[in-house]
Amino acid sequence: MVRNIKIILEYDGTRYHGWQRQANSLTIQEILEDGISTITQEDIRVVGSGRTDAGVHAMNQVANFRTNSNIKETGLLRGINSLLPGDIVVKEIAEVDPSFHARYNAKSKIYMYQIYCGAVRSALYRDYAWFTHDTLDIDKMKEAFQLLLGTLDFSSFCAANCGIQNHIRTVMSVDIAMDSRAMAKFFIEADGFLKYMVRNIVGTLVDVGREKLSRTEFMRIVEAKDRRQANQTAPAHGLFLKEVKY
Amino acid sequence: MVRNIKIILEYDGTRYHGWQRQANSLTIQEILEDGISTITQEDIRVVGSGRTDAGVHAMNQVANFRTNSNIKETGLLRGINSLLPGDIVVKEIAEVDPSFHARYNAKSKIYMYQIYCGAVRSALYRDYAWFTHDTLDIDKMKEAFQLLLGTLDFSSFCAANCGIQNHIRTVMSVDIAMDSRAMAKFFIEADGFLKYMVRNIVGTLVDVGREKLSRTEFMRIVEAKDRRQANQTAPAHGLFLKEVKY
Repeated sequence: MVRNIKIILEYDGTRYHGWQRQANSLTIQEILEDGISTITQEDIRVVGSGRTDAGVHAMNQVANFRTNSNIKETGLLRGINSLLPGDIVVKEIAEVDPSFHARYNAKSKIYMYQIYCGAVRSALYRDYAWFTHDTLDIDKMKEAFQLLLGTLDFSSFCAANCGIQNHIRTVMSVDIAMDSRAMAKFFIEADGFLKYMVRNIVGTLVDVGREKLSRTEFMRIVEAKDRRQANQTAPAHGLFLKEVKY
Repeated sequence: MVRNIKIILEYDGTRYHGWQRQANSLTIQEILEDGISTITQEDIRVVGSGRTDAGVHAMNQVANFRTNSNIKETGLLRGINSLLPGDIVVKEIAEVDPSFHARYNAKSKIYMYQIYCGAVRSALYRDYAWFTHDTLDIDKMKEAFQLLLGTLDFSSFCAANCGIQNHIRTVMSVDIAMDSRAMAKFFIEADGFLKYMVRNIVGTLVDVGREKLSRTEFMRIVEAKDRRQANQTAPAHGLFLKEVKY
């Protein structure tokens, strides 16, 4: 009998060419499919909640796969993890309804983006936060960030090669928290994200934080619906897929 | 004129064979001395506040070196950092009194040790925290940890090849904090540390947290003054040199 298995994954994207399987590049999907296939002795295909770019991390990526194996969940979890490298781990596993689809059924996703604001770069966070030696005005960035709440056309924050016609997305919540280590953490929840959307938003918000861009100018960029209006794309290594909600 | 320069360093110890220069192994001291020597065009020798073992990290290691160069502090900082790899960085630099010695003048040091307590190992913290799937009783560990406050003979927590006669050290403060990510952080401040001392203490405290060892048994281990009495040595990658006080 075919079972539908949902998994929650954590990974450090530093070494990988992103989530999605591709020829000639090491990807998380490939490593995962190889591991699961070895355990179940089938040719497993995994469906992720969405792609993550090269260098992007995940605290809780969600995926599902179908298997004829009758190995229990705990056995699958232990077996798969024993084959995965140290920078990828399956945190949770559960048999779910046959209709569950990790991508189509996702209601929203939360991303986190880290910026380390210091006098010099960080050695310990070099792969997990974007570095700036500018002081960022958190309140100004928050005010601008909140302009994105609701249903909007995100064309200004979409990658040039986005490949999708519909650029309308609904943002449910945004927040920025500053921790004691001078780490600014941006959080954004939306029903879907366009390619580079979070990184383009953060790259533009940072200029608001540096007072190079006003709240009004930020809004004008959003309203332009034109990628050429937005500022730099923040680098991949500060980005984490934090949660997928169903 | 000879200047005495004090530096504060952050490093990720994962790739290195510890602080101290040695033949045939990559060490932090060697990388640092090579970088500074290139900038000042001298043969620079750096004195660290103490060694850190292979795989151990530092948030604020302190070192000093003597130079005839008249490059200003900001120029030295920028120049040295431009030559250091991403996992080592000089955070602060200052010219100090000729008598300052990073090791002899250190009054105390604070170490932090991280344990990740989860159902499965962490991918993101694999190089920065020891993993256990046991639930640890933080209060029981704290109570036992506090037995180490004051001036004691730490022979039971000293490495077999310690090479030092005097095992008496003064512990000024201890603490354990648990953060939301199931990360237990141990902090210990002392006027000096023996080889593997923090790692042996944490390795033994963990058995108190697992309720395999009582507070009384922990005290008996301390009083035995015998390394063979203590439990496992916690792995290097959970350990951070947090601060050196002068």
